[in-house]
Amino acid sequence: MELTRDDPRLEQLAVNTIRFLAVDAVEQAKSGHPGMPMGMADAAFVLWTRFLRYRPDDPAWPDRDRFVLSAGHGSMLLYALLHLAGFDLPLEELKRFRQLGSRTPGHPERGHTPGVETTTGPLGQGFGNGVGMAVAQRMLAARFNGDDFSPVNWRVFGIVSDGDLMEGVASEAASLAGHWGLGNLVYLYDDNHITIEGSTDLAFTEDVTKRFEAYGWHVEKVSAYHRAALEQAIARAVAETERPSLIVTRSHIGFGAPDKQDTREAHGEPLGAAEVAAAKRALGWPEAPPFLVPDEVRALFARCAESRAGEYEAWQSGIKQWRSRQPEQAALWDDLLSKRVPADLLERLVSAAPAGAGATRAHGGAVLQQAAALVPALAGGSADLEPSTKTAIKGWVSVAKASFGGRNFHFGIREHGMGAILNGMALSGFIPYGASFLVFSDYARPAIRLSALMGQQVVWVFTHDSVFLGEDGPTHQPVEHLAALRAIPNLRVMRPADGIETAGAWALALERKDGPTLLALTRQSLPALERPASFRAEHLRRGGYVLRESETRDALTLIATGSEVALALEAAKLLAPGLPCRVVSMPCPQLFLEQDAAWRDAVLPPGGRRVTLEAGVTDGWHRLAGERGLSIGLDRFGASAPLAQLQEHFGFTPGAVAERVRAWLEETTAR
Amino acid sequence: MELTRDDPRLEQLAVNTIRFLAVDAVEQAKSGHPGMPMGMADAAFVLWTRFLRYRPDDPAWPDRDRFVLSAGHGSMLLYALLHLAGFDLPLEELKRFRQLGSRTPGHPERGHTPGVETTTGPLGQGFGNGVGMAVAQRMLAARFNGDDFSPVNWRVFGIVSDGDLMEGVASEAASLAGHWGLGNLVYLYDDNHITIEGSTDLAFTEDVTKRFEAYGWHVEKVSAYHRAALEQAIARAVAETERPSLIVTRSHIGFGAPDKQDTREAHGEPLGAAEVAAAKRALGWPEAPPFLVPDEVRALFARCAESRAGEYEAWQSGIKQWRSRQPEQAALWDDLLSKRVPADLLERLVSAAPAGAGATRAHGGAVLQQAAALVPALAGGSADLEPSTKTAIKGWVSVAKASFGGRNFHFGIREHGMGAILNGMALSGFIPYGASFLVFSDYARPAIRLSALMGQQVVWVFTHDSVFLGEDGPTHQPVEHLAALRAIPNLRVMRPADGIETAGAWALALERKDGPTLLALTRQSLPALERPASFRAEHLRRGGYVLRESETRDALTLIATGSEVALALEAAKLLAPGLPCRVVSMPCPQLFLEQDAAWRDAVLPPGGRRVTLEAGVTDGWHRLAGERGLSIGLDRFGASAPLAQLQEHFGFTPGAVAERVRAWLEETTAR
Repeated sequence: MELTRDDPRLEQLAVNTIRFLAVDAVEQAKSGHPGMPMGMADAAFVLWTRFLRYRPDDPAWPDRDRFVLSAGHGSMLLYALLHLAGFDLPLEELKRFRQLGSRTPGHPERGHTPGVETTTGPLGQGFGNGVGMAVAQRMLAARFNGDDFSPVNWRVFGIVSDGDLMEGVASEAASLAGHWGLGNLVYLYDDNHITIEGSTDLAFTEDVTKRFEAYGWHVEKVSAYHRAALEQAIARAVAETERPSLIVTRSHIGFGAPDKQDTREAHGEPLGAAEVAAAKRALGWPEAPPFLVPDEVRALFARCAESRAGEYEAWQSGIKQWRSRQPEQAALWDDLLSKRVPADLLERLVSAAPAGAGATRAHGGAVLQQAAALVPALAGGSADLEPSTKTAIKGWVSVAKASFGGRNFHFGIREHGMGAILNGMALSGFIPYGASFLVFSDYARPAIRLSALMGQQVVWVFTHDSVFLGEDGPTHQPVEHLAALRAIPNLRVMRPADGIETAGAWALALERKDGPTLLALTRQSLPALERPASFRAEHLRRGGYVLRESETRDALTLIATGSEVALALEAAKLLAPGLPCRVVSMPCPQLFLEQDAAWRDAVLPPGGRRVTLEAGVTDGWHRLAGERGLSIGLDRFGASAPLAQLQEHFGFTPGAVAERVRAWLEETTAR
Repeated sequence: MELTRDDPRLEQLAVNTIRFLAVDAVEQAKSGHPGMPMGMADAAFVLWTRFLRYRPDDPAWPDRDRFVLSAGHGSMLLYALLHLAGFDLPLEELKRFRQLGSRTPGHPERGHTPGVETTTGPLGQGFGNGVGMAVAQRMLAARFNGDDFSPVNWRVFGIVSDGDLMEGVASEAASLAGHWGLGNLVYLYDDNHITIEGSTDLAFTEDVTKRFEAYGWHVEKVSAYHRAALEQAIARAVAETERPSLIVTRSHIGFGAPDKQDTREAHGEPLGAAEVAAAKRALGWPEAPPFLVPDEVRALFARCAESRAGEYEAWQSGIKQWRSRQPEQAALWDDLLSKRVPADLLERLVSAAPAGAGATRAHGGAVLQQAAALVPALAGGSADLEPSTKTAIKGWVSVAKASFGGRNFHFGIREHGMGAILNGMALSGFIPYGASFLVFSDYARPAIRLSALMGQQVVWVFTHDSVFLGEDGPTHQPVEHLAALRAIPNLRVMRPADGIETAGAWALALERKDGPTLLALTRQSLPALERPASFRAEHLRRGGYVLRESETRDALTLIATGSEVALALEAAKLLAPGLPCRVVSMPCPQLFLEQDAAWRDAVLPPGGRRVTLEAGVTDGWHRLAGERGLSIGLDRFGASAPLAQLQEHFGFTPGAVAERVRAWLEETTAR
């Protein structure tokens, strides 16, 4: 380390190596964003060589510092750093930037590249992920750090752009980070005064420093090229333990490119061969070969890694001894970091499931207590709707500045910030859950998508899941949401019909490690379903199962979810005996469609006529109803009225459903 | 007016009338939010009687001040004010609060209640709508106010809650309002220190004053019950013409309820009979009858209306004279306020449509120039992606502090704020459009939903509409978005396939007055389609039409949208002559399904086998493919790679599609 500090030439060489690895990769790909890496190479270099604690051959080292590139379009900055720092990202991969199957996709993708902590690109999300990581760190520290050994020392660093700071999701997360006093969070703001449309003066003239101070942040301003001043500023930010820090680094997009520096053209397209050559000349860099990494620079990063080896080894031996001294704590540590759940979780939750009538949100609240006792990694809260969503873990305090040992969260009225924070927590040893009304899933949708894209285990609990929430009216009544959420790949949407299905849904959500699960729960009370003797808890893993069988071979099948299952049963009784009806409960059509043909055909006999019933848009249901089938739903917005009036008005009574089915059968049979 | 100012007893009576109308209505409905109206009755009274310019018998008076209740859950505050102010909202309607078909739904709904300017409830949206109204006012003023007469004098007032201020959408809109210097915007912040989960200290400890000052706002603090101080503060805010104003009114939720004031219980449920009685006693109000409106209070509001009659009459006579003096300006005025488009718009745009190959985003940019010349109400911009979305109106400056005469907008990287602002503009004489990448429609989704719910004409232009945007990778590649957006009732989603369809889509969007339209446009270039001689522009109104016919009776039909239409044509050529194929272009399946059976059956012959083709999730397409059909799509996230690699990888080449169709036919025929 001393050498790098004492030899400005070597440092400058290293910084330019980063700069031109990015430039050359974008040029080779004929696509990408050279300007940000060129502008922020110095600051990133200082951060990575002087502060960031990482271990390239153990990228999952639990005590590593986290680096979040919220400005994900600057991906080549991160790839260049990872390559130089010795992560398993060979130069060949940098040469395959943005090519199919490379480890260097256009924006950083968690799981594709060792050392990439989170998937970024959609602006503001990384900012919020980092806040989630930082609060998770505080929670882990509160659980495990002790007088004899502290396994949790990591910090969160990141680079954010003007775009991140303009996005509301970051505003929400920033307010919470200040509220929680997350002194373990340090963001460098790439203040380059340029956006895609031109100068930031076109749309972004607020006083960022003052705004972040208003959130309770420590803010400093520094040049992005005065490395000593940068180091001092970051050191002060690291030393500030009570407040998160924003270091406003005044930078120049495309730094060093004679014609494109400080222009929007430097942002999102290759510089072009002539400008690349000119930039290399301007910064004293050889024009050829591309992808040049001087040996001295490799040596610098190797020394840097070496200087950190002792710390890593000390941590490993420390935790080994701690494990033997504190076996219970160590078991909890493993449970958290592996997000362990009991092997018989489904059976245990289902056997303890609320047996009576009730709203599924209330059932969910009861199941959550059981689940929290069995799964220590579970922690979460609500976007200021806990009394309605019933999502508090009893007996545990809320996470706050003075109580990071808690498991409950008050996210405030910030669904989107909550979502980005949950993603960060999921990346940091927790199974987080977040709750709101289903209609407000829209506010968090970009974060929900990222849980799904990253394959992170986040549990979304959305109550008030249909127009039958009643009086609050169409602004609060979801109709399109179930369909729209089911459309997100890798998001599992479950809409349970009673206490047992709610227990099953929670169990599946907690078992599922490779993606998020969304529970859609009712505001209104539902009866407990009568189940056939053949029912077993395992059936809940199937996404759909037969609730009422018929001995008649060509019986009609009513397929319903959630609050409409009991309605389907009632309608079936009205239709029988004249019209024999089977009833299928299908809390998760996506999961049902993944089952083998034997199960699917047993539940939905091929050729049988089918009616689907759900209080929402019918999009997606035609697939299960089939061309000769009927999809009963609500292809319109709701209305403000008490529950019973709405059921009547929209035809969601047993009589109305039975009548509709009869009329449809007559019409289609006559045809 | 003098009387009300001089007689504190009468004012207090009026304030308590508002308070208890709200309390009694919630009690009668057994549902609602009494706490906010009780807390803010004084402030609302001051605003409505001293400042707000309205005309109850002409609620659409163009020069009325706009009042936005962003804290929409306090709807009864607004209904009480509208009733007392003489709008067509009889006491009977207040008694039917939250009942089916009443004019008093749970949250204010534009179009249901005279005097309700915008639909609110989802927090933060009203805040953004007000910013949109205020910028629209400035734009109208820049166009029409002159030395001899100024028809545009209105201001925007509103009440916002802590929930509004926590939501990121409001942060985005607030930053823009400050940037634009909207001195015509005055919000009262109901600073009651209580959220649904308890004290705002649980999650909201930022310095709101400092934050809004950082955005460039004028901020004052005042008690919500010191009416003289309130009046002075509002007067100063009105006098401040260069900055928007936030007046932080320290209030008490449930003011006057002995046990529930300052508690979260006062927020969202009826007080209960005992507490209602106690509150009435505490404030010296008769316990019975409910819904009491003292005659003196009616008289007070009548005097208030009377005092404003002169202003209204003066405006009416002023504009009448102005019309005759300035017939061209008057014509423009009518065009804007009626959002007029030429009757032959479709034909004109289609006949001028770009004829060659190109990206539909580029076609869109060309059509926009034609449309802007024909439709003066059209104005909009992009969330910092104009060079990519191609959505600038050439020859017009951007809207900015010094140039409200412009038609282009720089919204910054704030899709959600943009959406809420567009809704406000649509409510104020413009046909606004907003652009971004399709994947980021998620960020704006709550605002898109509200355009649809309100039936407002907003045009959303989302480019980069599939994985075929290429290298930016899955964070930027929409796959579920078309399906998810089509699920929103009353939102028309159009995905044109070439220049002619793009012109048609823009024309339909501009003609459609009762709801929003979304255009999904490609990044990549597409060939111009060959059309049959029978094609007429009118076919574009049908949502789907035959592009390639077959003489074979049982020909297969390939149905495609956007970039996949040309692909379907190529695949059809490969499949023919062995397998006769028809090709249907279906830019808007929703619109197609609304057509009469004759059209639908002509386009999709009943019983014919069908294949749908779209580069996105197949949800929704099974309906059109039918049970015996095939839906080719992408039910997974994309990948970062150049276009051609992705087409190959995901099987979106003519050969791969033809092969897939052949294999499917063999498999299903053999079965």
